[in-house]
Amino acid sequence: MRTLIKNAWILTMDEQLTTYRNGMVLIEETRIAYVGEANATLLERADEVIDARGGILMPGMINTHAHVSMIPFRSLGDDCPDRLRRYLFPLENECMTASLVYHAAQYGILEMQQSGVTTFLDMYYFEEEVAKACEALGMRGVLGETVINFATCDTTAPYGGLAYGENFIKEWQGHELVTPIIAPHATNTNEAWALQAAHELAVKYDTLVTMHVAEMDYEMEEFRTNYQMTPIEYLDSIGVLSDRLIAAHCIHLNESDMKLMSEKQTRVAHCIGSNMKAGKGIAPVKEMVASGLAVGLGTDGPSSGNTLDLFTQMKTAVYAQKTHYKDRSLFKAEEIVKLATIGGAKVLRMEHEIGSLEVSKKADLVLIETDSLNMFPIHDPYSAIVYSANASNVDSVWINGRQVLKNKQSIFNQKHVKESLAKEMQTFRQRAIERAQAL
Amino acid sequence: MRTLIKNAWILTMDEQLTTYRNGMVLIEETRIAYVGEANATLLERADEVIDARGGILMPGMINTHAHVSMIPFRSLGDDCPDRLRRYLFPLENECMTASLVYHAAQYGILEMQQSGVTTFLDMYYFEEEVAKACEALGMRGVLGETVINFATCDTTAPYGGLAYGENFIKEWQGHELVTPIIAPHATNTNEAWALQAAHELAVKYDTLVTMHVAEMDYEMEEFRTNYQMTPIEYLDSIGVLSDRLIAAHCIHLNESDMKLMSEKQTRVAHCIGSNMKAGKGIAPVKEMVASGLAVGLGTDGPSSGNTLDLFTQMKTAVYAQKTHYKDRSLFKAEEIVKLATIGGAKVLRMEHEIGSLEVSKKADLVLIETDSLNMFPIHDPYSAIVYSANASNVDSVWINGRQVLKNKQSIFNQKHVKESLAKEMQTFRQRAIERAQAL
Ligand SMILES: [Zn+2]
Ligand SMILES: [Zn+2]
Repeated sequence: MRTLIKNAWILTMDEQLTTYRNGMVLIEETRIAYVGEANATLLERADEVIDARGGILMPGMINTHAHVSMIPFRSLGDDCPDRLRRYLFPLENECMTASLVYHAAQYGILEMQQSGVTTFLDMYYFEEEVAKACEALGMRGVLGETVINFATCDTTAPYGGLAYGENFIKEWQGHELVTPIIAPHATNTNEAWALQAAHELAVKYDTLVTMHVAEMDYEMEEFRTNYQMTPIEYLDSIGVLSDRLIAAHCIHLNESDMKLMSEKQTRVAHCIGSNMKAGKGIAPVKEMVASGLAVGLGTDGPSSGNTLDLFTQMKTAVYAQKTHYKDRSLFKAEEIVKLATIGGAKVLRMEHEIGSLEVSKKADLVLIETDSLNMFPIHDPYSAIVYSANASNVDSVWINGRQVLKNKQSIFNQKHVKESLAKEMQTFRQRAIERAQAL
Repeated sequence: MRTLIKNAWILTMDEQLTTYRNGMVLIEETRIAYVGEANATLLERADEVIDARGGILMPGMINTHAHVSMIPFRSLGDDCPDRLRRYLFPLENECMTASLVYHAAQYGILEMQQSGVTTFLDMYYFEEEVAKACEALGMRGVLGETVINFATCDTTAPYGGLAYGENFIKEWQGHELVTPIIAPHATNTNEAWALQAAHELAVKYDTLVTMHVAEMDYEMEEFRTNYQMTPIEYLDSIGVLSDRLIAAHCIHLNESDMKLMSEKQTRVAHCIGSNMKAGKGIAPVKEMVASGLAVGLGTDGPSSGNTLDLFTQMKTAVYAQKTHYKDRSLFKAEEIVKLATIGGAKVLRMEHEIGSLEVSKKADLVLIETDSLNMFPIHDPYSAIVYSANASNVDSVWINGRQVLKNKQSIFNQKHVKESLAKEMQTFRQRAIERAQAL
């Protein structure tokens, strides 16, 4: 199958940030076979020709931190102090079933596809269900089972995620769309031995580790009090700060932390929407990038950031950095689009397969229409994407060569996915109401 | 004409924040005749019945600071230092014609209507053209001609806006949709006598004044150096700090400024998107509100904030305040929705006519659909609006009792408005390219 996309304003996001004002992309099966100027001879080679009508064609966006099955929590207790321990942990333990995780993951995946996300990193419970949802909906996922120091909805003892996680990795490794990893919950919700065991698992199966790092004030305090260290120094001291680690958040880093991370080539998932909504602070992304760290953008869970699109994250990230450093010229729009595409691919160790539109890479693409009122005029397409666009401007999406969104409509049965989730959520809703009343 | 909207989740935004889970609103001509629980007898009284299908019905949103005719500048030089003096002032003086202002205003008004804005404050040049655009598109506008210390695109001498502005006020005062005001550009781009003359105009015609205040670092520096005062103290010292003044931005206020403003009942237009994008800082909205100031939200011009919707502003404002004060419980979602509705109405001195859904108020309403994936679940409708929604969720809009948006489609000829603007913009585009190359 060969699909030709013509009449596109192409942002390749390659090393030189090559663009084509009126370009073409040829997809052959799962990969990109041509990217460049319009070329009439390509029309003959194509089984299917799609007219982009001058829209912006760019690499699929990469969400480097999510808990997509937390859809049921969206808009619950948003402005509540210590929401994690008041709402999230207890409701997870009470109500999260394999089936709810599966249906919520399907829902979240459709929502991400509609907003131009083609790859996401997820850490949650029953992670196998998330993998099945990826498979069912043609989504690319980097998925890690959570490891934590208490019994959870899918384990009967603390740290049960280690065993679940190893099985999950063995079962899914080598899958076309799903890359299994392992996901200790946070620096302070796992004992050292468990963090080390997770790291060893990653070494054994040559995969990645992800974890919440330097996110919470009380986390910082704990490590200062108990070890006179930062969380980064602590991770290094127990031997788990490495190029296998994707550290999510990293709000509270000092210069020497960044130096350490840079030496170890640790990766960062920056989740600015979640961080600002929770009043936690603004991560020093300018300095991270200057230190040579790989940085991607993440939405965090739909309860933390409420939206699963990277348009919100791009805009919020650039707003936050310019404000934090009082410099309007900091992070030009194209640099933020980089974080959402090739930057995210580097974080996921997948930069040779995805993240830019280049021949032989996987065909993960997003077409953004420029017909809507908010998309005119366009003096600079990167500016339009970062500052003017929102998720509703996404017109078409291809993942692994397959078109999953056409004219803003999912190819899957969205109504069925939504109804199934609503049905699965009945107990959850009841418990959520009870908990809100009890507070 | 009587229109009944049924099956709506109504957020009245009245003093008690009354909501109706399955409510009805009856519109009679230009005003609201009923708001409350479903009542079958109303069905008989209506000429037209609209099924909201469980969507959220709320007051039309109020944009308290814009320069809507700056649409041509959108995405031009976004990350450029001192863009105001490098791009905006010169291109305005070279290229802005009455016709371009008119067509750009039409475009911006359609865009605002689509995003749920039903009233906007505007300050620009050829403001009469903006008024005509409001009239043509049934938009409610509070419009001020700019007064500045140099000759502009619509005046041949410095401060020509004073004469234009007085004529404009005389001509449009008492109009059903347009409220004319006067708009000195900023504290530091007008001599004291001109600020005083603008204030006197407002007193003479019993109208409002708007101005950029405490926005720029160099503005703060200038007043410190020349007068050992803050801009607020300066405005007070020359007698123009009053309840007629809507001060836009107010990023740099100290406690005594806020005390002064509170004594004088000066009003504030908070433009967080514009402020963060330009790296200028975060205004102390928490303290403003605590001081009893009337505060509304503003998009600023489409070149400063790029979008003209208040969803972006609500989310950014709440993110910024929570982060600035490190408190996730600060500004609950409903308080931010207040700023976008009744808060804005108070800023515009129109709280008895608009800003909440109450019987006898003007029928300015917005229906937000909850069918899209990003709008599920809804544990709290205010949270859904502030954290989950975007402009594309707006389904229907009524202004002054007239439905201007139906099923996300404008009742006006949007294609024609866009094409007319594109045609008018040809010279502007050429000059913009030349200027970019010259930098
Ligand atoms: Zn997280
Ligand atoms: Zn302004």
